[in-house]
Amino acid sequence: MPNFRFTLEYDGSDFEGWQSQPDGHRTVQDTLEAAILQVTGKSVRLQAAGRTDTGVHAEGQVASAEIETELAPSVLRRALNAVLPPDVAVLECEAASPEFHARFAACGKIYRYTVWNGTLRSPRRRRHSYAFPHPVDLDKMRSAACDLLGTHDFAAFAASGSSVQSTERTLRRVEIGGAPGAEIVFEFEGDGFLRYMVRNLVGTLLEIGQGRRPTSEMRRLLEAKDRTLAGPTAPALGLVLHKVFY
Amino acid sequence: MPNFRFTLEYDGSDFEGWQSQPDGHRTVQDTLEAAILQVTGKSVRLQAAGRTDTGVHAEGQVASAEIETELAPSVLRRALNAVLPPDVAVLECEAASPEFHARFAACGKIYRYTVWNGTLRSPRRRRHSYAFPHPVDLDKMRSAACDLLGTHDFAAFAASGSSVQSTERTLRRVEIGGAPGAEIVFEFEGDGFLRYMVRNLVGTLLEIGQGRRPTSEMRRLLEAKDRTLAGPTAPALGLVLHKVFY
Repeated sequence: MPNFRFTLEYDGSDFEGWQSQPDGHRTVQDTLEAAILQVTGKSVRLQAAGRTDTGVHAEGQVASAEIETELAPSVLRRALNAVLPPDVAVLECEAASPEFHARFAACGKIYRYTVWNGTLRSPRRRRHSYAFPHPVDLDKMRSAACDLLGTHDFAAFAASGSSVQSTERTLRRVEIGGAPGAEIVFEFEGDGFLRYMVRNLVGTLLEIGQGRRPTSEMRRLLEAKDRTLAGPTAPALGLVLHKVFY
Repeated sequence: MPNFRFTLEYDGSDFEGWQSQPDGHRTVQDTLEAAILQVTGKSVRLQAAGRTDTGVHAEGQVASAEIETELAPSVLRRALNAVLPPDVAVLECEAASPEFHARFAACGKIYRYTVWNGTLRSPRRRRHSYAFPHPVDLDKMRSAACDLLGTHDFAAFAASGSSVQSTERTLRRVEIGGAPGAEIVFEFEGDGFLRYMVRNLVGTLLEIGQGRRPTSEMRRLLEAKDRTLAGPTAPALGLVLHKVFY
């Protein structure tokens, strides 16, 4: 059976995340699976690289599924985009090798988090940026972020109550761009991410940027491995799954 | 009575334009006047620099009104932002001279129009960019736009059926930035704009960019002064009133 690889963009505002849920919950997975059923007549289960949470966006999510269809990938892509709602689109659809699995084959991801740091809320940015009007020092955040690079136990930044086997992850790059008082963009590249990890890191970095925590804070938190010591979880709407590496 | 000058940002997606309308229509003017009533107890009529149409956004709209209140401008601004809905905000509130009138005193405006020129629709850009997936040549559009600079009778680009006294306007600057296949941003600066003028200019420029009209087309249209000869009206959602000059 042909195996397909889909690259997806979605506006997460009106979705309850990626993962399929019982009726009455609108998820990206259910929406895309319904479109595949409509176009090919086949019920499939998609696997996604990152199971984004409620309200989180994507511009490079990758999903895969075996689909019994004779449609060429480019034809399938066009047909799916014609029936999908406006807030989700298939950017690419490719024939994948039989063993390709969007989640298990992923070797890295980039997440972006956007903060609107203006003193006033911005109506035009309200769906895709976290409004954080307090003065922050980008250099303090950058200095603290350096301590995150490399392989660490990120237990202090995992969702509380989650039960993953290992909380060790490798962060390859953390960049903090933009300007205080305007838009600030955090970019995280790593081999994998724990649930809420990016949002917990951003919440803590912002407190460091405000001077409410020392720039040495990340070292202490990584060592303590205690979620209750880290900062608040930044809201979902600022987060975008930007890219998945294979 | 103190005269106030407000600078406004709004997401026009869920508004039926600026101008007040009978009940059941949600407009920016009615929303802001209701907020002023709630905060000061006074019914006022706001005057806006540009009466933006349904779906058009603003990040620098200016409005004015005399309001019998003892609130300082900064206090009034905070109080209004606390009661206004998420899709509109008062960026600035200043004491204005008694004769200041946001519409009549305006001596220029900047409008921006954003096109998403990717071959596939973009869910994350869908509320603020016009999805135009056809190949366009930016240099052809820039060359044609040069003919628009200066003072001309823009009757060919006015809304059909409008009855303004004069259709003569001065365009001081037209810039076309961004990249084909991605985001393209048109910026128009002029002394004033006819209804639908920017959207009609963009619709015509895009046809020139596609090679469906010659780069000399703007000269012909300005001379003919015939709305039926110009291109289609580009949709409202790509348009933003960026700035008003006084």
